[in-house]
Amino acid sequence: MTDLIDGNVHAANVRARTKVRAEAFAAAHGRKPRLDVVIVGNNPASRAYVNTKAKMAHETAIDGRLIELPETVSKEELLGVIAGLNADAGVDGILVQLPLPDHLDGQMMIDAIHPAKDVDGFHPMNVGKLFTASRIDPEAMLIPCTPLGSLLMLLDTVGKEGLSGKKAVVVGRSNIVGKPMAQLLLAYDCTVTIAHSRTKDLPAVCREADILVAAVGRPEMVKGDWIKDGAVVIDVGINRVPTEDGKGRIVGDVATNEAMGKASYITPVPGGVGKMTVACLLHNTIVAAEARVKG
Amino acid sequence: MTDLIDGNVHAANVRARTKVRAEAFAAAHGRKPRLDVVIVGNNPASRAYVNTKAKMAHETAIDGRLIELPETVSKEELLGVIAGLNADAGVDGILVQLPLPDHLDGQMMIDAIHPAKDVDGFHPMNVGKLFTASRIDPEAMLIPCTPLGSLLMLLDTVGKEGLSGKKAVVVGRSNIVGKPMAQLLLAYDCTVTIAHSRTKDLPAVCREADILVAAVGRPEMVKGDWIKDGAVVIDVGINRVPTEDGKGRIVGDVATNEAMGKASYITPVPGGVGKMTVACLLHNTIVAAEARVKG
Ligand SMILES: NC(=O)c1ccc[n+]([C@@H]2O[C@H](COP(=O)([O-])OP(=O)(O)OC[C@H]3O[C@@H](n4cnc5c(N)ncnc54)[C@H](OP(=O)(O)O)[C@@H]3O)[C@@H](O)[C@H]2O)c1
Ligand SMILES: NC(=O)c1ccc[n+]([C@@H]2O[C@H](COP(=O)([O-])OP(=O)(O)OC[C@H]3O[C@@H](n4cnc5c(N)ncnc54)[C@H](OP(=O)(O)O)[C@@H]3O)[C@@H](O)[C@H]2O)c1
Repeated sequence: MTDLIDGNVHAANVRARTKVRAEAFAAAHGRKPRLDVVIVGNNPASRAYVNTKAKMAHETAIDGRLIELPETVSKEELLGVIAGLNADAGVDGILVQLPLPDHLDGQMMIDAIHPAKDVDGFHPMNVGKLFTASRIDPEAMLIPCTPLGSLLMLLDTVGKEGLSGKKAVVVGRSNIVGKPMAQLLLAYDCTVTIAHSRTKDLPAVCREADILVAAVGRPEMVKGDWIKDGAVVIDVGINRVPTEDGKGRIVGDVATNEAMGKASYITPVPGGVGKMTVACLLHNTIVAAEARVKG
Repeated sequence: MTDLIDGNVHAANVRARTKVRAEAFAAAHGRKPRLDVVIVGNNPASRAYVNTKAKMAHETAIDGRLIELPETVSKEELLGVIAGLNADAGVDGILVQLPLPDHLDGQMMIDAIHPAKDVDGFHPMNVGKLFTASRIDPEAMLIPCTPLGSLLMLLDTVGKEGLSGKKAVVVGRSNIVGKPMAQLLLAYDCTVTIAHSRTKDLPAVCREADILVAAVGRPEMVKGDWIKDGAVVIDVGINRVPTEDGKGRIVGDVATNEAMGKASYITPVPGGVGKMTVACLLHNTIVAAEARVKG
């Protein structure tokens, strides 16, 4: 029997708690916590993401604003926008939507965001704090949203005891998902293996996992027989695949149908990790806002 | 057949290259690169370490200075010393010898060092840069000395090709050895597993390793039958064990005698990783010095 981990339910809980805090913040400080999302150009997927972020922010009593810049914006102009947001005392969180057009260096822009406003948790200072932390505290740290959301679902589902001493395998080693996910699982006392495109015999590596996280970007790459009986599977992938009717559909990195009956729990795609990512962004915004007023 | 990886030879090479650069630096800038080591109290092991560091610095044409503070130094006084070194344009590298007495917070002191002078590579900013790097560049980053030394020995011994796609197991997850070591091996395309005190069936986990790094602090814990035939073993441990004559002797975390004949290569203790640690500190000092004059 495989249970689905319902991202909608977990995300609604995170948003409800965030909304209470955002309202208390507004009552205490005479303004809403504010999240500014910078988007460059017209990438439709990026547009869809930032619109969801802005909408969810409003529903959570956060003042979510969109700063739309043309595809042709220069490095200096974008750095200037970020510097302005850093200096603006009314701005609590800044997010620069990635990827950027080729002439702009994403890491340079991340480095330019003030670490205290870096609600994506991508600034080297926040990465360094995460990787040296002996204990994970999502109230005191700005942790990348997708791994944080995955961790919170795991904790709600199997508890700390369900992680400690377990074998975790993270497939993917990106800075936004794989590496921070591995660090979070390590801090919760998993024995963690990080796999990637150079890994030999990936199916065998995955079959060792009590906790399997797939963050690869390859539609349904992880097959049913890669999954150990009873494993908990977190499917981070969001992949659009073509369908006969031309509309396409969204699938994860795991062949969910094959995983049913093998995994004990699995996150569906859509309706899994993706929902938590946005909720954790709002969580990080209120954490940043509260930390800033405390000084 | 097991070959020893001779730390003395590798370290002498690193020091020789560093000395050439230090002399060129002095010729160009009218002063030697300078490393200031701060030591608090009278811990004999710490004293021995810092004396070695100062001696090796001098032999490498680096101006190594020792700042000795009493056990009773206050938090404010120590922060003041660090601030003074940060502000002193003649200081290229600052190292605060750990552990500190209980009334002083080691992480607070590390955070106080200017990242550009943090030759231990422990500042969150440098940790963040290391953990987000897609490519490891010991000329452009300040990487913690013990993992860097271990990596350089591995690269000299088996080459990049000897790491890519291999299974690496790092036993230990400290911020100064285990975690950065895992990140370095990951960047060189190993499939990396991090094990620790909560790991279940550690011998079986170790037996999977093509590259086995032990950084635990338990004398000869890793037995011969934990080692896969032909594995490359890096023994980071430095443990003093009692002997009948009362003098004690130094052993690693690996039962070296048992490993002989199983491993393809192993670092001896003493005479292995420890030698490289100090050499890499001097390497980091010249990297910091060159970066600072470049601005
Ligand atoms: N749910 C969410 O909210 C959310 C958020 C972010 C991302 N995502 C999704 O998660 C997936 C991963 O995102 P990302 O940003 O981490 O992607 P990424 O930066 O492209 O990283 C993908 C990782 O997968 C590895 N990989 C690629 N092909 C592989 C293969 N055949 N076998 C094993 N490993 C392989 C890559 O290895 P190398 O390093 O060796 O190249 C890389 O480490 C994507 O589908 C993305 O859309 C979802
Ligand atoms: N060669 C050098 O230059 C150099 C430099 C630095 C350190 N060292 C030596 O390297 C060793 C490790 O140093 P460190 O600073 O990393 O030590 P540390 O901070 O004490 O960390 C030790 C690590 O080993 C793990 N561990 C402890 N007992 C274990 C067991 N029975 N099974 C599996 N894992 C176990 C711990 O797990 P938990 O996290 O679960 O507690 C911890 O992660 C020491 O011997 C030290 O003297 C040598």
